[in-house]
Amino acid sequence: MDIKEYRFDGSRKVCLKEMPTCAEPAARKKDIIAKTEANLAQCAILQDKLFASGTEGLIIAIQARDAAGKDSLVKKVFGKLNPAGLEVHSFKAPTKEELSHDYLWRLNRRLPARGKIGVFNRSHYEDVLVTRVHQMEKGYAMPERVIGDKSFYPKRYVQLKNWEQYLYENGYRMVKVLLHVSKEEQRRRFIDRMELPEKHWKLSINDMKERALWKEYDAAYEDAINHTATQEAPWYVLPADDKWFTRYLMSEILLDTLTDMAPEYPPLDPAEAAKVPQALAELEENIE
Amino acid sequence: MDIKEYRFDGSRKVCLKEMPTCAEPAARKKDIIAKTEANLAQCAILQDKLFASGTEGLIIAIQARDAAGKDSLVKKVFGKLNPAGLEVHSFKAPTKEELSHDYLWRLNRRLPARGKIGVFNRSHYEDVLVTRVHQMEKGYAMPERVIGDKSFYPKRYVQLKNWEQYLYENGYRMVKVLLHVSKEEQRRRFIDRMELPEKHWKLSINDMKERALWKEYDAAYEDAINHTATQEAPWYVLPADDKWFTRYLMSEILLDTLTDMAPEYPPLDPAEAAKVPQALAELEENIE
Repeated sequence: MDIKEYRFDGSRKVCLKEMPTCAEPAARKKDIIAKTEANLAQCAILQDKLFASGTEGLIIAIQARDAAGKDSLVKKVFGKLNPAGLEVHSFKAPTKEELSHDYLWRLNRRLPARGKIGVFNRSHYEDVLVTRVHQMEKGYAMPERVIGDKSFYPKRYVQLKNWEQYLYENGYRMVKVLLHVSKEEQRRRFIDRMELPEKHWKLSINDMKERALWKEYDAAYEDAINHTATQEAPWYVLPADDKWFTRYLMSEILLDTLTDMAPEYPPLDPAEAAKVPQALAELEENIE
Repeated sequence: MDIKEYRFDGSRKVCLKEMPTCAEPAARKKDIIAKTEANLAQCAILQDKLFASGTEGLIIAIQARDAAGKDSLVKKVFGKLNPAGLEVHSFKAPTKEELSHDYLWRLNRRLPARGKIGVFNRSHYEDVLVTRVHQMEKGYAMPERVIGDKSFYPKRYVQLKNWEQYLYENGYRMVKVLLHVSKEEQRRRFIDRMELPEKHWKLSINDMKERALWKEYDAAYEDAINHTATQEAPWYVLPADDKWFTRYLMSEILLDTLTDMAPEYPPLDPAEAAKVPQALAELEENIE
């Protein structure tokens, strides 16, 4: 099991049909769960250093179709980190105020400070996915030179790439994750949402309409990934039918990224260090 | 008097020493003031349409040395517009919270909604001006790959250009203005601030230190302008020794830009239009 098989950093193109939606045949669930826990324990140690140093921020953008498991991934994987150094932001359909600004406005407002990990449950990619599939830009209150531009989406891909590069050059890392669920597994999960009372709150009949646009979303995802996957802000396409396996891969990505960031506890400030001997002596003399 | 003489849009380089700091010799103060008022009256009409349509936003970024007249320009020129469609944001030395994010974070948070005019009193250019002159980046809490990068400022110029291009492609216009004051005029104004009680509140002895770095700022301004001046986000270098003339030029820029944006009152919504005949009839029947 090599996380690189799921990684896209610009060196190859993605074709969703060729990407697995299930766990690797050789993977044993019990072992995988143990590995996931071990990975996340290491991540927690690295997160502590990241928070202490405050020099770099990490953004995990999660995209997926309905019922692919975004919410449970956030809960089960990121729930193992220290919440003080973590922010989760869920992006829904944009509000009127958000629509009256540039589309990155709502994301820029929610960028984590350096030292933190920010998880975006849906992200800036919504603006080249659902927007594109439904041609929503046609109805936007923007000048004709923008919404009538045939290169509207190609320009957005460049904008997204530039924005992510800018963040990288300013002390951030970004990882983009697509939870790749099969149509059959989505069908099963939708039926659960209709039949199980504890899952009713997740049900939205409108999701059925999006399901009917499966191919259109495939094309939009592939274009988005192929135009924005870079070494500095890679995409990962993770099989999402087996949640235990998805969580494992997410823990691998997190550990890989944090390891590469190599955060360290900052050294004692020299001005503080100079005061330590006396302060220490005082503490040692006065036991009370 | 042609505003194009003060404009930089990438087609030529700026050399500050060659740019005037005084009014044009042929300009008569009385006539210029009358023209300024006429310009601003037209701007107010266009601003009303811009606000009603809500399709495009305008950002005016004002940069200058101390005592060059930023505050009074904002008061005298932008004070003539409808404040409901106007936002003025002054950017001071960054706070600790601002420093813990990317440098455009505080600007993105204050971007006007489309339909509005946003005036930035100092702007994103501080991050390639004062920061550069004092090499402040060396002390930033960011990874070595960022603050140790020899291309730190060249990269920032590209970042700024990309950001402004992104905004243009998303329904914004940006105009960048440098108020170009002479060293002698700044000296006079500093003396005023020391001697006149009603100007004491503007005095900061620290400004003297910046004055001593005149040449370093010249170089930083020239590099910033030459690397970021584009057709879509041009720079204007305005003589700032004669405030009545600076205001006139600012009013010309504003009128030019708004005229080019060509905002229009939006037509009646068809759904609303369908209801008008009956509503009109009711209003006509019931005089009370």
